[in-house]
Amino acid sequence: MSKTAKDKIRIGILGASGYTGADLVRLLGNHDAADIRVVTANAHAGKAMAEVYPHLGGMNLPRLQKVEEANWDDLDLIFCGLPHGTTQKIIASLPSHVKVIDLSADFRLRNVETYAEWYGHEHFAPQLQPGAVYGLTEYYRDQIKDARLVACPGCYPTAVLMLLLPLVGGGLIEADDIIIDAKSGVTGAGRSVKEQNLYSEVADGMHPYGIASHRHAPEIEQELSVAAGRDLLVNFTPHLIPMNRGEFITSYVRLADGHTAADLRKVLEERYADEPFVRVVPEGAVPATRHVRGSNFCLLGVFEDRLPGRAIVVSTLDNLVKGSSGQAVQNMNLMFGLDEQMALRQLPMFP
Amino acid sequence: MSKTAKDKIRIGILGASGYTGADLVRLLGNHDAADIRVVTANAHAGKAMAEVYPHLGGMNLPRLQKVEEANWDDLDLIFCGLPHGTTQKIIASLPSHVKVIDLSADFRLRNVETYAEWYGHEHFAPQLQPGAVYGLTEYYRDQIKDARLVACPGCYPTAVLMLLLPLVGGGLIEADDIIIDAKSGVTGAGRSVKEQNLYSEVADGMHPYGIASHRHAPEIEQELSVAAGRDLLVNFTPHLIPMNRGEFITSYVRLADGHTAADLRKVLEERYADEPFVRVVPEGAVPATRHVRGSNFCLLGVFEDRLPGRAIVVSTLDNLVKGSSGQAVQNMNLMFGLDEQMALRQLPMFP
Amino acid sequence: MSKTAKDKIRIGILGASGYTGADLVRLLGNHDAADIRVVTANAHAGKAMAEVYPHLGGMNLPRLQKVEEANWDDLDLIFCGLPHGTTQKIIASLPSHVKVIDLSADFRLRNVETYAEWYGHEHFAPQLQPGAVYGLTEYYRDQIKDARLVACPGCYPTAVLMLLLPLVGGGLIEADDIIIDAKSGVTGAGRSVKEQNLYSEVADGMHPYGIASHRHAPEIEQELSVAAGRDLLVNFTPHLIPMNRGEFITSYVRLADGHTAADLRKVLEERYADEPFVRVVPEGAVPATRHVRGSNFCLLGVFEDRLPGRAIVVSTLDNLVKGSSGQAVQNMNLMFGLDEQMALRQLPMFP
Amino acid sequence: MSKTAKDKIRIGILGASGYTGADLVRLLGNHDAADIRVVTANAHAGKAMAEVYPHLGGMNLPRLQKVEEANWDDLDLIFCGLPHGTTQKIIASLPSHVKVIDLSADFRLRNVETYAEWYGHEHFAPQLQPGAVYGLTEYYRDQIKDARLVACPGCYPTAVLMLLLPLVGGGLIEADDIIIDAKSGVTGAGRSVKEQNLYSEVADGMHPYGIASHRHAPEIEQELSVAAGRDLLVNFTPHLIPMNRGEFITSYVRLADGHTAADLRKVLEERYADEPFVRVVPEGAVPATRHVRGSNFCLLGVFEDRLPGRAIVVSTLDNLVKGSSGQAVQNMNLMFGLDEQMALRQLPMFP
Repeated sequence: MSKTAKDKIRIGILGASGYTGADLVRLLGNHDAADIRVVTANAHAGKAMAEVYPHLGGMNLPRLQKVEEANWDDLDLIFCGLPHGTTQKIIASLPSHVKVIDLSADFRLRNVETYAEWYGHEHFAPQLQPGAVYGLTEYYRDQIKDARLVACPGCYPTAVLMLLLPLVGGGLIEADDIIIDAKSGVTGAGRSVKEQNLYSEVADGMHPYGIASHRHAPEIEQELSVAAGRDLLVNFTPHLIPMNRGEFITSYVRLADGHTAADLRKVLEERYADEPFVRVVPEGAVPATRHVRGSNFCLLGVFEDRLPGRAIVVSTLDNLVKGSSGQAVQNMNLMFGLDEQMALRQLPMFP
Repeated sequence: MSKTAKDKIRIGILGASGYTGADLVRLLGNHDAADIRVVTANAHAGKAMAEVYPHLGGMNLPRLQKVEEANWDDLDLIFCGLPHGTTQKIIASLPSHVKVIDLSADFRLRNVETYAEWYGHEHFAPQLQPGAVYGLTEYYRDQIKDARLVACPGCYPTAVLMLLLPLVGGGLIEADDIIIDAKSGVTGAGRSVKEQNLYSEVADGMHPYGIASHRHAPEIEQELSVAAGRDLLVNFTPHLIPMNRGEFITSYVRLADGHTAADLRKVLEERYADEPFVRVVPEGAVPATRHVRGSNFCLLGVFEDRLPGRAIVVSTLDNLVKGSSGQAVQNMNLMFGLDEQMALRQLPMFP
Repeated sequence: MSKTAKDKIRIGILGASGYTGADLVRLLGNHDAADIRVVTANAHAGKAMAEVYPHLGGMNLPRLQKVEEANWDDLDLIFCGLPHGTTQKIIASLPSHVKVIDLSADFRLRNVETYAEWYGHEHFAPQLQPGAVYGLTEYYRDQIKDARLVACPGCYPTAVLMLLLPLVGGGLIEADDIIIDAKSGVTGAGRSVKEQNLYSEVADGMHPYGIASHRHAPEIEQELSVAAGRDLLVNFTPHLIPMNRGEFITSYVRLADGHTAADLRKVLEERYADEPFVRVVPEGAVPATRHVRGSNFCLLGVFEDRLPGRAIVVSTLDNLVKGSSGQAVQNMNLMFGLDEQMALRQLPMFP
Repeated sequence: MSKTAKDKIRIGILGASGYTGADLVRLLGNHDAADIRVVTANAHAGKAMAEVYPHLGGMNLPRLQKVEEANWDDLDLIFCGLPHGTTQKIIASLPSHVKVIDLSADFRLRNVETYAEWYGHEHFAPQLQPGAVYGLTEYYRDQIKDARLVACPGCYPTAVLMLLLPLVGGGLIEADDIIIDAKSGVTGAGRSVKEQNLYSEVADGMHPYGIASHRHAPEIEQELSVAAGRDLLVNFTPHLIPMNRGEFITSYVRLADGHTAADLRKVLEERYADEPFVRVVPEGAVPATRHVRGSNFCLLGVFEDRLPGRAIVVSTLDNLVKGSSGQAVQNMNLMFGLDEQMALRQLPMFP
């Protein structure tokens, strides 16, 4: 059933030692058309992937190498999970036959000045920015099919936009009064070795972080502004939850004149009726992060508020899958003319 | 240093087999003036407390008995942690010399019709309701000193009211636009044996519950209405977090005309300047549940919002201590003329 | 690529509301030859599977029904996850064309008296016991292919036997001096609603249980006795660990005369060289439960002891997959002449 | 009730930024005779303790300083929680009026060559070693009272020795056949910022580490050898468990001729009958880490094995309290003629 080697997409994963890289390998490991040829990781260069990620020990993977050593000629596609800034430089240097799916933040913001403001340095590849497609699959599907460079959304923006784009776009809610209380598992911070990510700093407790200053805010605002047809700001307040994976958005919205929570539900249901990975849960049901764990699904919910004229809308996804590697594979499938769901049918794992 | 037995307060704990009962015993175990004479628990009657709570095995406690078997003559004070409804009946039957600190919801709502509406049955002791003092220590201190019956607030209301009462009372925020996103550890649900509280249903994931229908909402609204001088409603949306203890409130508020986040901070700092258990964290610091774990402290924080004219205010406490047993002991100290902080100086446990 | 409906195995899952049932559905959901026709659950009969397990909400499954209502004519195979005793009665009543993979303990012990002794009631289907094949795939593969009734091993026995059978069978260790210190995640206890399985009773702590009395001991002893060619006993001491899935065996063994830890490693490596799901980790590497989470893999390790003449051998697997549902699907594949790895290639999920 | 300042012990805590340092501050915060004058931490020098440990924000503590800046004249006692090697150099340089309670491994091993072998460098203060008293309070109480330098045991050795010393010393078990399967919470690794201690590397899973090579083995062997009257070795195999605090020892022992598990129980019960912090749980009860969480207690248990002639003995304690800071305070109380239990009566916190 497998494709022969010559039919396969020859893939490089840059920055494969992060959790996102590992989950990409996990998903591609069951992808019939994927041939992982190159995996890079600076500090771990020279090691087998199984030394860095023993759970992938059963796979037959190339050794990790430095990004400078990669042979691009050999590749059709790279997934890029490098730190911001670095990504721009590397991608600018690639031969043009290589398609790129970037998982970093480097090409998500259309306005390079907004990028500079939030990331603390100028954009190093402004010439590539106009050609970059924002990889929110359900919204940019057609452009993604023809793109050379896809900038996958951040995990939070994916969860937020899937929930709010139809509501803002349809004029069902007041676009200037959007509160987004977000909760994330610890893998959202990657595998970076910082005191704040130690087990005992995170387990059995919780706290907010990046209040009013998280870098995913401008990305959310950019896309909601497109939907609203004018610039808008949002409240975005993330919290760190003692769980590995999962992201949950509780959004408090003010209904536009004459609309009800039932209208919001209807619009969301219609918008996603044909989408394989996005689902509105039935009235009365409550989504939970564990309902999507390990899968590419995104669940949405709508609730009436006790405050008149308001509603509560929620969404959840696995930050490493639909919020990152899964959406990236979904985009790869589109870019190479494959079944969009290929290698993404894995069901959520509960417990 | 210990008081002699005859100076001590003779205490009964009704419903001692819940987590709240156990934490009460933990705190009273180091209270020089407390003499626990009676502990009741229906299903476990006849057992030693150490069979039900082995961590208390080193203490010299009476055996658990049925509440019907308790000898009230022998007691000065009971803490009551029984299911709602039951509490009202039991308390109505007690001899008048016994003081009561109720940890259930039975006497928290001043309006017995509101009680009936939210708890699904009529109030069984309406004659006692007018004499019940709402046990939010920092706000009803003087009445508590003279009360016979103190109705301790729910854990969420304690965290919310400590945060919002000065802001609503001082007219610093719009009282009709209060969003309360609440997060709680699993002990908030008590030791009740339900599928939804099983380890694997709760660990490594999260979800909201009781959306727009949680019974703590009317309690919060009652007290905020008092502060506002008129009836008001709030959004109150709790979430279940995979941690044992701890409660975190993230409240999204609209500033009243001319006010700033800095004003909110100033008002909170002034209000709690002399309170031993409530503290506003310094600007830039972010409270976390683990900063209060096991202690009677409540921490508050104030942040500017990215949305103009709004602010984000937060609070955290340990739901079993300041949110329940600790506040109960604090009230006991007041009711018996003791140092208010007695047995409550234990510092938070981190990690 | 999918088989047409008429080629598919028509499957019933009895007791589908347990975690094992849910994980079976998760695995079979991606199995091209599986057609789930019947799912039963007594308390939940009448509900959709998605009400009981929302993470399976995207699947098209039949409604849960009572086991008495199942139409056996329609089925080729049942997976049976019922409580012990019940299983024996149900299976005895099935039409003979239906193959059975039992996940309970009811047919694991060859000696029906041993069964009666450990399970507290007589065996209700002793006539079926001789035909039951012990479903440890890597050891009973040929019999499984032709079996009508396969009794899948317990999760602990699977992990222990994979590790110790080659060592006892090859005479490399002293068979009368085997210490098995076992650690299990909480799903090992199933979804049963008991106080001891509540989040706060299990999280952030650990303890042993069933010391010298766990029902998996006779099962382990049965199979090791076969390998040894004589009856033997083992120490088996399980511990409950605050994690959802995963089982870890640390076994302390005395080397038979002249043997070394290196010999143990060599024997295990040779035994499993061609097995797709069992792997000895390289010298120096240390297996962890999270290296197999969600997958059908079993990892083994061998270490020299500080005590002369002894070695430490370890194994790990996911109790719900290789320790239960995954091994069951592996056996199904064999019984129906399919590729043994079908639907089991899912890689471990880390983190 | 507090002592006046001049009666108090003037204390310095070196290496106060580790979890052990923080727990020491937590305990001393309620100690009537303790006056913390100096806290040091190299990387954090200049900060307030509350910046490093916000849960201690309510205390009135000196600022962190570099160890070189400490004024020893002002101090009666230092607790030393520095890395090994460093400790020896610092302590050697202290004025002789300062008493020292060392929480590192630097003075635990009587044989300086054993130290060099296990710690990879020569002992830097061999002249002080003979005067160092091993701070296992229940066994060296009299020497501790008069000591200037007390070397507190490691957390594992404390749990192991409390369990095995009476059994080896009394000749009840075979001293050459001791298996020690140990489990520890993550704080056992301190607050060191290493990938292996990140939340997602540790949560929801487990694994052994330091197999046959952990530095606590020689310490255990040293003390058991004293009890046995001859040199012995032990198996010691630690495992990392996803919990903050707590240590659990499951030890598999061979009974000496004629002895039974009941004899072991009797000997342990008698040995600890008058000890306030060590308790043998009743027959049938099973100790758990959460029964001692946050407290200075150590619980022991004895079980018959299924294997003839063997027994299973267990112990548990909180690694940061009885396994470290609590035992240190207990020793301080002895060294300064105070009530041994002072500041250590805090009951375990469950959940």
